[in-house]
Amino acid sequence: MSLIFRPLFEKESSTYTYLLADSDTKEAVIIDAVDETQQRDIGLIEELGLDLKYIIETHVHADHITSSCPLKQKFKNAKIVLGAANSMACADILIKDGERLQFGTYSINAIETPGHTSGCMSFVCEDRIFTGDALLIRSCGRCDFQGGSAEKLFNSIQKIFTLADKVLVYPAHDYGGRTVSTIWEEKQFNEMIGGGVDKDEFVGRVNAMVLSLPKKIHVAVPANQVCGSNILSDG
Amino acid sequence: MSLIFRPLFEKESSTYTYLLADSDTKEAVIIDAVDETQQRDIGLIEELGLDLKYIIETHVHADHITSSCPLKQKFKNAKIVLGAANSMACADILIKDGERLQFGTYSINAIETPGHTSGCMSFVCEDRIFTGDALLIRSCGRCDFQGGSAEKLFNSIQKIFTLADKVLVYPAHDYGGRTVSTIWEEKQFNEMIGGGVDKDEFVGRVNAMVLSLPKKIHVAVPANQVCGSNILSDG
Repeated sequence: MSLIFRPLFEKESSTYTYLLADSDTKEAVIIDAVDETQQRDIGLIEELGLDLKYIIETHVHADHITSSCPLKQKFKNAKIVLGAANSMACADILIKDGERLQFGTYSINAIETPGHTSGCMSFVCEDRIFTGDALLIRSCGRCDFQGGSAEKLFNSIQKIFTLADKVLVYPAHDYGGRTVSTIWEEKQFNEMIGGGVDKDEFVGRVNAMVLSLPKKIHVAVPANQVCGSNILSDG
Repeated sequence: MSLIFRPLFEKESSTYTYLLADSDTKEAVIIDAVDETQQRDIGLIEELGLDLKYIIETHVHADHITSSCPLKQKFKNAKIVLGAANSMACADILIKDGERLQFGTYSINAIETPGHTSGCMSFVCEDRIFTGDALLIRSCGRCDFQGGSAEKLFNSIQKIFTLADKVLVYPAHDYGGRTVSTIWEEKQFNEMIGGGVDKDEFVGRVNAMVLSLPKKIHVAVPANQVCGSNILSDG
């Protein structure tokens, strides 16, 4: 029995999708799947003979369209999972802090980590945490739309930092080609919150971010609020 | 004691760089480091407090310029490692099939895997193989320059396929955002050689590849034949 673990990358939005499965039972989950790479992901799930149980979104993304609904159309037993704060009708499970999803002998624990958006979740499986856009490698998510709050994000990252130093951090994005970090590294070196930055300083840094709107926000957010069901083909 | 393992990605050439280290002794190796991302890699090595022992190239790349020499200029005890068939003066170690490099309690075993170029090596560490451009995910390297030979590549991949099915395959490139495969998967699903393709069929498929020359070949190959020393700054 072992954990199959496949990080996958979508170049245009620099998004990481994560596929996890129990090698014995073949039960699987996918985190933050992207529309553009759905054929790659479907192909891999089929080749590995996986039984997709959960299609998890860390949050309602503004930079890319999810493939949640297309994946569910293909793998009919899979359930779409989103944080409860999103209260979205397209989700099969609106998950709350402390709740758990089982796949084979493995489980994924949900942690509410609002701040980038009001509905952001992180997910812990064994010695890995999937942090979405809450904690990025050496950085963090922006807080200027979708109910974002730098104060809440500070508290969320402090919650993430209570995990063991050696826990591996897998974010939803990295724009510099880094694929993984650790809690220890981010506590030390994160440029927004590392080295013991306090809440006021962190909020100041987040508010000083100079950012343009994500190119796809006006398409991606409405699409993702229906789990990508508006991009389904008839096939 | 554990293995620190960091896959890193360079977007323009879709190259994977791999950093491995012993968490106790901090001795480290880097495989296929790229010029464009040298500051990222130097920063990470410094933040993690690593003692870089070996700068390994799987082969003389045609699509990007190595950062071997700049890294050696920064980490003065590190030795540049290339396959013996390259007979290049800029290498400190010209490694042969079956030879081994030690970092902390870990070792890396060299395997000659010519075919993409005449000097291609793969490197095995624990349950991972770094295959350079010999075996790619669902694909393989081209064989039309730098002493390439589809016949030799067939034999090299057969040699790689003698490893255990569960061994993780980390290539030098993936153009579709996949980060890792396994020997089992490539034996089954590789589109060039999977499913028991024989040598004649494989050679035919390689020869039928329709490819343009890598954009940087006329800059990258000469630069890489001197381990990137011609791009050194004076700093």
